[in-house]
Amino acid sequence: MRLDFVNMEAERIPHMRGGEKEVALKSYSDGKNKIMLGRLIPGATIGLHTHETNSETVYILSGTGKMLCDGVYEDLAPGVCTYCPKGHQHSLMNDNPEGSEDLVFFAVVPEQ
Amino acid sequence: MRLDFVNMEAERIPHMRGGEKEVALKSYSDGKNKIMLGRLIPGATIGLHTHETNSETVYILSGTGKMLCDGVYEDLAPGVCTYCPKGHQHSLMNDNPEGSEDLVFFAVVPEQ
Repeated sequence: MRLDFVNMEAERIPHMRGGEKEVALKSYSDGKNKIMLGRLIPGATIGLHTHETNSETVYILSGTGKMLCDGVYEDLAPGVCTYCPKGHQHSLMNDNPEGSEDLVFFAVVPEQ
Repeated sequence: MRLDFVNMEAERIPHMRGGEKEVALKSYSDGKNKIMLGRLIPGATIGLHTHETNSETVYILSGTGKMLCDGVYEDLAPGVCTYCPKGHQHSLMNDNPEGSEDLVFFAVVPEQ
């Protein structure tokens, strides 16, 4: 099944998972996998949350930022991937000053 | 968990799943998720295979090609994603002439 994220409409989600500012999110879900293309402007975050029934794999397409994963800050840059296994917790952040590049990522959340 | 695909060593897999030529593959697996960064030169393919116990989500980073998914050819280009649910089959191909761009993709294969 082909999903064209280039031409898909983005939804604006304010304070996603209790985070700062908003996330522009393109997503598809069939109940088994949630597949996402997300964009965080500088200062935007996805709040800390635990993956109770699924895992999440995030691949950084452009920009920089940090993932707080089980209490550890991981530096993110294009070509870096961050994996949150089922039962673990994380928070994604574009911790750059205003005027910096957006953090753009691709993510897959499979029910497991 | 941070996975740095930029600096990870690629493994060369000839005739992957019975396909043509070879795939340069960077991969991580914990038994629950296989996470991959793959590169197909022009003429290289990953042969047709069925996802019996898992699904696969493939995101195209650069280059063009086709996914044959359940008998349907899907055009692939940067920013396009192709999803193969559990129980379905697919084959990935860089069907461009020699000298064309490599097809580079990011993929997640979760056990489900």
